[in-house]
Amino acid sequence: MNKGKPLNIGLAGFGVVGSGLCQLLAENADIIEKRAGRKIIVRTILVRDAQKKREVALPAGTRLTTDSAELVNDADIDAVVELMGGIDAASALIVAALEHGKHVVTANKALLASEGPKLFRLAAEKDRILRYEASVAGAIPIVAALKESLTGNRVRSLVGILNGTSNYILSEMSTNGLDFKQALRQAQELGFAEADPSLDIDGHDAAHKLIVLIRLAFGLDYPLDKLAVTGIRNLSAMDIALAREFGYRIKLIGQVTALKNGENNGIILAAGVFPALVHQNLLLAKVGGAYNALRVSANASGPLFFHGRGAGSLPTAGAVLADLIAVARGEQPNNTGFAADFPKATILPADDWRSCYYVRVMVEDTPGVLRDISGCMAAENISVAQMIQKGEMAASGVPLVFMTHETSQKAMLNALERASRAGLLREAPVYFRIMERDQVN
Amino acid sequence: MNKGKPLNIGLAGFGVVGSGLCQLLAENADIIEKRAGRKIIVRTILVRDAQKKREVALPAGTRLTTDSAELVNDADIDAVVELMGGIDAASALIVAALEHGKHVVTANKALLASEGPKLFRLAAEKDRILRYEASVAGAIPIVAALKESLTGNRVRSLVGILNGTSNYILSEMSTNGLDFKQALRQAQELGFAEADPSLDIDGHDAAHKLIVLIRLAFGLDYPLDKLAVTGIRNLSAMDIALAREFGYRIKLIGQVTALKNGENNGIILAAGVFPALVHQNLLLAKVGGAYNALRVSANASGPLFFHGRGAGSLPTAGAVLADLIAVARGEQPNNTGFAADFPKATILPADDWRSCYYVRVMVEDTPGVLRDISGCMAAENISVAQMIQKGEMAASGVPLVFMTHETSQKAMLNALERASRAGLLREAPVYFRIMERDQVN
Repeated sequence: MNKGKPLNIGLAGFGVVGSGLCQLLAENADIIEKRAGRKIIVRTILVRDAQKKREVALPAGTRLTTDSAELVNDADIDAVVELMGGIDAASALIVAALEHGKHVVTANKALLASEGPKLFRLAAEKDRILRYEASVAGAIPIVAALKESLTGNRVRSLVGILNGTSNYILSEMSTNGLDFKQALRQAQELGFAEADPSLDIDGHDAAHKLIVLIRLAFGLDYPLDKLAVTGIRNLSAMDIALAREFGYRIKLIGQVTALKNGENNGIILAAGVFPALVHQNLLLAKVGGAYNALRVSANASGPLFFHGRGAGSLPTAGAVLADLIAVARGEQPNNTGFAADFPKATILPADDWRSCYYVRVMVEDTPGVLRDISGCMAAENISVAQMIQKGEMAASGVPLVFMTHETSQKAMLNALERASRAGLLREAPVYFRIMERDQVN
Repeated sequence: MNKGKPLNIGLAGFGVVGSGLCQLLAENADIIEKRAGRKIIVRTILVRDAQKKREVALPAGTRLTTDSAELVNDADIDAVVELMGGIDAASALIVAALEHGKHVVTANKALLASEGPKLFRLAAEKDRILRYEASVAGAIPIVAALKESLTGNRVRSLVGILNGTSNYILSEMSTNGLDFKQALRQAQELGFAEADPSLDIDGHDAAHKLIVLIRLAFGLDYPLDKLAVTGIRNLSAMDIALAREFGYRIKLIGQVTALKNGENNGIILAAGVFPALVHQNLLLAKVGGAYNALRVSANASGPLFFHGRGAGSLPTAGAVLADLIAVARGEQPNNTGFAADFPKATILPADDWRSCYYVRVMVEDTPGVLRDISGCMAAENISVAQMIQKGEMAASGVPLVFMTHETSQKAMLNALERASRAGLLREAPVYFRIMERDQVN
């Protein structure tokens, strides 16, 4: 650490978060210098087009470049901040920066999900800091909580609302009765969703974040391509309304639970991203609009709940800045909370995952249908906790909703297969996991 | 840092938290060693009575002592964990430990509130770690959040439910209709309240925590004896029921808000501990039982909300353990997030604090009373947002409740003084601040 000497950074990307970071470095300069013990100065910004007109003023003395070599080869740059997104160019930049002895701060969850282990190994070899608080849940300091605060705990489970765009859409559908397309269009108009929203609404963004969180919570590598991911694109207003009748909200959930008796560290991980029913009394059900939230349960701490802005210029830039101040303070690298080598996680097959389920089928409104469908459930040993049948006739039949007691996904799918083979279903069945009170407090 | 060599600790106090720490060190030993890079071993435990029978087994190789010199003079002890409580002996122990070059971890909020600045100065002189995550809000990592994660932010306000005992009592009064004495007795029977509950129910414990939080959030010293503190001892079931009619819960709140135009860092602090009305839709109103919660608002992050166990053996011991693992890892001292010298805070006099208020007066049920009381409000320029008058006659009159728009405490007290002088009040008036949506999200 060089007390008094400024920390010079090279910033890659001058979009929403990059310009927010420059704004904060100016607005909060006194606080930052007081806490970091030195100034933080943006020396060079890597952009795609240096001629583009920008709404945000360039910090005094900062120059733009389109050549990433000007960041990594500049001996006066102490740390590189990667906010360009994408995989290949970002990965190349981070690797080059670490190899040139620079510390790195990134918000790139997609990159960390796919190449995290490689990058952490390189950072460890080079004894450099690789920080990424902004990569998950925006302003919520969940990376620090898992890496620094829950270190003496065995984490049992982690449940999160990790994608603000999806949560905004679901909140609008639930509260204002919009259908999915209307809610998506509104989110796009308000800037909460991209023109191509698939990364958010199909669950991939939440999946990237969940992979990063699993590594922090358990020190295990859960390959992204092994994660079961279901988004909200096909969610119907009918299920949101029916779930409300039972006292539930539907949320896009990222979840990991540690089960006992696995091989690595004695645990098996059950993980996935999926829409699920959350009881309205639980804190997680109260998470509205574009907010994010996480619930972590651990053996000493018990349940912890975090709530805050999951995206946006300043909330995300504030998280980047916390990492930069740690670099400026000369903290030793502690990039993952574990050693740099991650054993592969032992993974519970989705079929074996046990949960309570909400199951909706569309059936013909004739005598015996309820008996027949119930029979399919009973044949798979599924015990039904609650049921409603709606009388309104539609072309596709009437909806019949079962809330089951805990069962395996396999049994539930088998029961639906039985019903389908028996010709009882007028359209494809719909099912969601139900988040239990002890999972979400 | 001595990689591989165990971190030897001297533990002062073998009560609820101390024995929880020993339990965790055993149960989570593999995780701890993996994360700390070395074992953590309890070498010596300082107790009052070495002969006392204990339910918790002593760790193998650990010895008991009644002489604090055996902790501070033992060259093989790297860190002292102070969990004995109280002020004088704890202070002497911490000072001696720091002077002997040992790192210190403590959960002692009362000591930190009164002698924090002195202890932080000494730790800085000796270049030692003085950590205290467990001193505020149990398992919630709020010390780390303020010290490490919100470092690039200007904190605007902090609102917390910081005392689990009081929150338990208020929850029982609100949910199960108990009066204060019944709820207190129940809390005592369940072990949530001490035989002498005054530290908790009179707001002092929350006040100690708030002083620690103010230092972390603003880098300013707010003297404990300047903090306005009101507890819940005189809270009536009537006000809890009336508040519910307006859609509010009554919570014991610790709050600090930074107003502009002060002298130190340009801010004036408005701070206090008091029962307040919190709208039922806000997350803070959902905090039930012995849980703690905090809401921090900062200029980059926006509002962050944290919720978790505020006390108890393992939740508190887990926080102590996080600090110990940081010591074991050889982190550099960063005890306050600021320099070791705290400027005195500029304090807003309580009279000038602006808020919406709930005001209940007991009046005679005669024509003109409402007009006369309303006149007292109007004479102080207080605008009334809502009002209810209950018809039920009692010896002490009928209750009349006003919910005011924002006004100063001085104006509100002046209005009540006018009413009193006019002979309108049958007993002493009751008033509470109302937490606004933008204060508590």
